[in-house]
Amino acid sequence: MKIPELADIRTAHSVIEKFIHRTPVLTSKQLNSIFGCELYFKCENFQKVGAFKFRGATNAVLSLTDEQKKNGVVTHSSGNHAAALALAARMNGIKAYIVMPETAPAVKKDAVAGYGALITFCKPTLKAREETCRAIIEKEGATLVHPYDNFNVICGQGTASLELIEEIGEPDIIVAPVGGGGLLSGTSACTKGISKKISVIGAEPLNANDAWQSYKSGVLFPSNNPVTIADGLLTSLSELTFSVIRKNVDDIFTATEESIISSMMLVWERMKIIIEPSSATALAIISENPEFFRGKRTGIIISGGNVDLRKLPF
Amino acid sequence: MKIPELADIRTAHSVIEKFIHRTPVLTSKQLNSIFGCELYFKCENFQKVGAFKFRGATNAVLSLTDEQKKNGVVTHSSGNHAAALALAARMNGIKAYIVMPETAPAVKKDAVAGYGALITFCKPTLKAREETCRAIIEKEGATLVHPYDNFNVICGQGTASLELIEEIGEPDIIVAPVGGGGLLSGTSACTKGISKKISVIGAEPLNANDAWQSYKSGVLFPSNNPVTIADGLLTSLSELTFSVIRKNVDDIFTATEESIISSMMLVWERMKIIIEPSSATALAIISENPEFFRGKRTGIIISGGNVDLRKLPF
Repeated sequence: MKIPELADIRTAHSVIEKFIHRTPVLTSKQLNSIFGCELYFKCENFQKVGAFKFRGATNAVLSLTDEQKKNGVVTHSSGNHAAALALAARMNGIKAYIVMPETAPAVKKDAVAGYGALITFCKPTLKAREETCRAIIEKEGATLVHPYDNFNVICGQGTASLELIEEIGEPDIIVAPVGGGGLLSGTSACTKGISKKISVIGAEPLNANDAWQSYKSGVLFPSNNPVTIADGLLTSLSELTFSVIRKNVDDIFTATEESIISSMMLVWERMKIIIEPSSATALAIISENPEFFRGKRTGIIISGGNVDLRKLPF
Repeated sequence: MKIPELADIRTAHSVIEKFIHRTPVLTSKQLNSIFGCELYFKCENFQKVGAFKFRGATNAVLSLTDEQKKNGVVTHSSGNHAAALALAARMNGIKAYIVMPETAPAVKKDAVAGYGALITFCKPTLKAREETCRAIIEKEGATLVHPYDNFNVICGQGTASLELIEEIGEPDIIVAPVGGGGLLSGTSACTKGISKKISVIGAEPLNANDAWQSYKSGVLFPSNNPVTIADGLLTSLSELTFSVIRKNVDDIFTATEESIISSMMLVWERMKIIIEPSSATALAIISENPEFFRGKRTGIIISGGNVDLRKLPF
């Protein structure tokens, strides 16, 4: 199993940089004062399709052979990866088959449809997604671009932290949310490649703490239909992301639903930017562990901003 | 009556620029495609206190004599000007007395209190606000800094359009919302001073169309307790702002509540930024007048981002 390294992430960045937005790094004196540390928000909510996923999807699409491009790509996703792959495919003139759980937020379904992808809905379980995906691969010959269990996808996701560190220099800590582990894998491989001194912390909802369990026990725990507002963090680690995370991540902290929601509100109110609950999870773990972060220069990967405004938790 | 000119606004900018944020100008390919024109959003939602009002308040405070500074400043405001004056005063070590309508959004009351101002609540009518204000002036000797009927305030508000044009060059049209007319006065005086060729359009809720009535008739109409979601646009023009607007503004368009709300949602969903309903009014008039704006380079002053997230209209 080939593990992504900093050099792979640098290569991915040179491949994708003209297709992606170089997103801004925002700061807020008010939030620094509230949290007692220096926060640097890498705003992937301003990325194309509203999420970091466009980085990994673009890198995966640009890594296809000409033969593979003819038959298109397929994936299953709770939404952001689906939109990302759909757009990355369309920008390269290839077909995208997307398997989505029928429970995905309307805003995400609409986005994927708007990018011209061919959508198949399925039950909201990992098993249903994988089976539906497999059927499409057999019928169409499409190449699977897994949301996170994919070397090229992970390398693409790591480019957000690469840009962050280029912009602010080396922070003390970088926090990224963890669901399937693509973002955390890419972030940690990149960051530790740059400096072993930077702590890399994963942020996970307490209600979907399978990555925390896996990390603490050393045995990969699958997620079991977790219920959390952080709808981008429902999935389980893969063998690949688990390996990268075990190698590079210093710890995983969990956050309650209450602190995820209040962190999301705080960013909306004070910074005037829309972040999705999965992103708020990264700030929530800081609010729940003030001693750990006090006085530290802390980078946060704001993973995305796709929220169904008609179903807000406040 | 002295009317603000471009030179006054340039002076104001040189006075306040080290105290304010130079806010970004954002664009969105998606919104350009939806509206059929090139939109440039001057994002005063990212200004200190979350609104352009900090520009005018800062200019007014920095224009006080030492004698005036001793007795503090007083104002009445539906919220953003109150927070702005409170912060501008605190940054200069002087007292701020703020008269607020008891119906102001909680987020605005909290902000003003957080900046250390002394708040007096009153009924939500212009008469009640002015009477309460007058009582404080008599008792404390404080200097009134009116939210918009004030030369220095208007000059400060005009600096947003000055920065916008510095950044993007001369657009075909600039749109600013109009309530009391401080922003529209400053914007229009600045813009017409730079070039008579740039159209300046005011945006007003149909449900609070007193500025439109005044502009069309040539006679100043007071607002009469209007009901609109655009809570920053409830106030009436003053003789001063009316004079500036009659001289410099090319037209005022009105927007329905429905299009204000849908424009606000559109910006939140597509641009991932929080704008308040008053700001959405500027986009709403574009959606209601597509022929006027088609193909035009159009600057929009996004006036602020202070919204009570627990009372959203969707």
